[in-house]
Amino acid sequence: MNKKFAKESFTIMNELVLPNDTNTLNNLMGGRLLHWMDIAAAISAQKHCNRIVVTASVDNVSFKHPVKLGDVISIEAQVTRAFNTSVEVKLVVYAQNIPSGSRVKSNEAFYTFVAIDQNARTIVVPELVPETEQEKELYVDALRRRQLRLVLAGKMKPEEATELYNFFNQIGA
Amino acid sequence: MNKKFAKESFTIMNELVLPNDTNTLNNLMGGRLLHWMDIAAAISAQKHCNRIVVTASVDNVSFKHPVKLGDVISIEAQVTRAFNTSVEVKLVVYAQNIPSGSRVKSNEAFYTFVAIDQNARTIVVPELVPETEQEKELYVDALRRRQLRLVLAGKMKPEEATELYNFFNQIGA
Amino acid sequence: MNKKFAKESFTIMNELVLPNDTNTLNNLMGGRLLHWMDIAAAISAQKHCNRIVVTASVDNVSFKHPVKLGDVISIEAQVTRAFNTSVEVKLVVYAQNIPSGSRVKSNEAFYTFVAIDQNARTIVVPELVPETEQEKELYVDALRRRQLRLVLAGKMKPEEATELYNFFNQIGA
Amino acid sequence: MNKKFAKESFTIMNELVLPNDTNTLNNLMGGRLLHWMDIAAAISAQKHCNRIVVTASVDNVSFKHPVKLGDVISIEAQVTRAFNTSVEVKLVVYAQNIPSGSRVKSNEAFYTFVAIDQNARTIVVPELVPETEQEKELYVDALRRRQLRLVLAGKMKPEEATELYNFFNQIGA
Amino acid sequence: MNKKFAKESFTIMNELVLPNDTNTLNNLMGGRLLHWMDIAAAISAQKHCNRIVVTASVDNVSFKHPVKLGDVISIEAQVTRAFNTSVEVKLVVYAQNIPSGSRVKSNEAFYTFVAIDQNARTIVVPELVPETEQEKELYVDALRRRQLRLVLAGKMKPEEATELYNFFNQIGA
Amino acid sequence: MNKKFAKESFTIMNELVLPNDTNTLNNLMGGRLLHWMDIAAAISAQKHCNRIVVTASVDNVSFKHPVKLGDVISIEAQVTRAFNTSVEVKLVVYAQNIPSGSRVKSNEAFYTFVAIDQNARTIVVPELVPETEQEKELYVDALRRRQLRLVLAGKMKPEEATELYNFFNQIGA
Repeated sequence: MNKKFAKESFTIMNELVLPNDTNTLNNLMGGRLLHWMDIAAAISAQKHCNRIVVTASVDNVSFKHPVKLGDVISIEAQVTRAFNTSVEVKLVVYAQNIPSGSRVKSNEAFYTFVAIDQNARTIVVPELVPETEQEKELYVDALRRRQLRLVLAGKMKPEEATELYNFFNQIGA
Repeated sequence: MNKKFAKESFTIMNELVLPNDTNTLNNLMGGRLLHWMDIAAAISAQKHCNRIVVTASVDNVSFKHPVKLGDVISIEAQVTRAFNTSVEVKLVVYAQNIPSGSRVKSNEAFYTFVAIDQNARTIVVPELVPETEQEKELYVDALRRRQLRLVLAGKMKPEEATELYNFFNQIGA
Repeated sequence: MNKKFAKESFTIMNELVLPNDTNTLNNLMGGRLLHWMDIAAAISAQKHCNRIVVTASVDNVSFKHPVKLGDVISIEAQVTRAFNTSVEVKLVVYAQNIPSGSRVKSNEAFYTFVAIDQNARTIVVPELVPETEQEKELYVDALRRRQLRLVLAGKMKPEEATELYNFFNQIGA
Repeated sequence: MNKKFAKESFTIMNELVLPNDTNTLNNLMGGRLLHWMDIAAAISAQKHCNRIVVTASVDNVSFKHPVKLGDVISIEAQVTRAFNTSVEVKLVVYAQNIPSGSRVKSNEAFYTFVAIDQNARTIVVPELVPETEQEKELYVDALRRRQLRLVLAGKMKPEEATELYNFFNQIGA
Repeated sequence: MNKKFAKESFTIMNELVLPNDTNTLNNLMGGRLLHWMDIAAAISAQKHCNRIVVTASVDNVSFKHPVKLGDVISIEAQVTRAFNTSVEVKLVVYAQNIPSGSRVKSNEAFYTFVAIDQNARTIVVPELVPETEQEKELYVDALRRRQLRLVLAGKMKPEEATELYNFFNQIGA
Repeated sequence: MNKKFAKESFTIMNELVLPNDTNTLNNLMGGRLLHWMDIAAAISAQKHCNRIVVTASVDNVSFKHPVKLGDVISIEAQVTRAFNTSVEVKLVVYAQNIPSGSRVKSNEAFYTFVAIDQNARTIVVPELVPETEQEKELYVDALRRRQLRLVLAGKMKPEEATELYNFFNQIGA
């Protein structure tokens, strides 16, 4: 099985906020952004897997800053870790206001995708090799995020989620 | 401040899965579904608040069953609890296959929205009054889900999240 | 041949009026509403037929109240009667204004659909069984509406349209 | 008040049938065609009125021939008559198959529009002057079609619909 | 091989400028117009070829007049000349303002298309026969425009572009 | 007047080719690509100008390789030179096939934009400072491309187009 570097999946997507993307106060609607993030993340996952991928889950996403009509949304996506037939993708979203030139981080999120073949059966994906310090940290923490997803989806028993248990203890301590 | 019953916000949205909603294997893309869910949830939240609402957060969503081109997506949304200037909406998504008549639950999710006035300032919303057993359970648990959101978004200290702590203890026990 | 109850085809579709749905005075354009009504009616017809359906005709539709940008359109559709290979669907459209909470009936209409198989040949559909008083009245009157459609489309001779003749006599009397 | 010739409102609209316009058997959906017809008719009505217009009604439309993915839809629209603040537009729809070069008449329909000013109040429109034999016939018959619309919408008493009464007598004779 | 007259490919397309077609100052975006022009030109080319066609090139297009939200765009397209497996289409774009009734020429452009069969291989197209003086002039000049395209795309050596050379000499003289 | 480096305007846009972007042979339509290129170029121009920009012209674009449904289009845009109230943007388009991982250059093009203020009047833009060898070459050649545009649009007399004259002489030599 071949391996691939994290940076090989790096993807940037820029979108202009148009009228149909906004509510009646001219703010970008959250659902449109979630849709763009899904496409950006899928492109990134496909670069890693060289396969069609389908969205398996989206982690908790919060929307902090209103984004306005005419702003430019810039989404950066990169695979953090591969798990047998799936990958986790980290997304960072920026909103740029044209007249002021300001650029603020709008969101962060993690999407996971499953790779499938032409018959829609899951298929093994290449391993991911992290290189930088940040890539290595994301790689390690991906295990805990995966356990949280599995527990929340009722697919893993809490007592098996050892990474998560340690994290919970820290939080609850 | 007036109060409203949970059922007053009940909203059903049906959508037909068209070609542009699907990937090259004719499966509904996750991002499109997240977008529809946001609109359905926003309609439900607006029925409760009688205000424009903006998406504040989306909880962990997992996609279990592939939905096919030509299927009918049915989204049911209802407000579970109001918190000063925000509401939590529960979504249940069903996918119906026309030839077979089968109907499977595809997803469950919680979206939260903030109500704003014409100057985009947050504004107090009506209290929600749960009536049925299920509405009461969702109402009570909404507190814990809110604490998890706040902790994950870095807006609440873990030691203040008492509801969450009890839940963590249960899980980690 | 199996039979189905009218209520089994009941379908609700909610849509948010977005900028591209409106003219330059921010009113919903009639064509967009006709398009949504067609999709809602097709979903209802498909629930009854468990088949792909194609639009056969739309009865006279009038637009009484302007619907505004940001309003919520709620379309309720239900099959009124089945005719060998086709069904008639009744649509009632409501427009809800969010800030005021007002909800007005915007339109009523009847669409008819033909059921087809995978080779695009028409195919027999289940009989419809009306239960309530309203369903029974719609079921009976469907015959007259069908004769009007056939006469207007030049597919039935006026002298054969007995139901229609009685109605005409009443009107013209 | 100025007058305008019927031909001044003549409008042609060509559209290519794309995947999202079709059902899972690759046939054009009726609702999409109704939407295009509304835009073509509105453009024609606006050419006559030099005003923003809103759809007031759509007469009975039947769909006779399936239109396929990749076909070219050609819609011809022309105002038939002006009534104080409204106009009636006749639409003829053709479907052209590219490989065979065949071109069949797919539909005929009548849409009516009301002209409004910037405050959304109805406003008087120019009179229409028919020139050709066909334009004159459409002009005369427009009165009967208008009475049928008003009766069906409950805005005119049947005994006042004299044009319609004569037509009904012919049909029912 | 059959021949066809230029006028047989004449195509008119009208589009209403809607909110999503415009920037934040309510002007039609150039890219949307280029997209509509491509569809209008493709329809015209397909009428001539009776084949699926794919865009091969777009000549220099300049945008002179701002087009506003609510304006009607009218695109007229006609094939000017056929070259073995390709055709050149001339487009003239008009923008009509509804309240004033004004109609200005907005653009002119030339698109070229290649005809392909079901296996995506290029295929010979019918010859074009120009009839009017204008059609004959466009037919003759098409050779020079084609040479400019080929030279700019690096597919023809400048010294072979005899028509272009004469034109350059005129310009540079 | 402030100056900006060329690289400050660098913009990447990735898009997934969906069904509605393709013709009946599943190839990306040229017009859709021209539309995406316009948005990517406009974002790049806006980063340089910190102003709303409108498309002024598109240079000759040729489409060499068919792009398939499911491919990822990657558009890279960067301003090459500023001219008083306008900028020229260079676009390079790549098409990536997911299963094979192949990535081919699909197109190159130059779009120009004019910067406008809130009253739609043209406004002076920052100078562009090229840094790399490639940026400097694009900066110098921008003058010749501009003269060709102006001559083709009939806004400059050929005898004044000195840069173009030298280029023509080279070609015609």
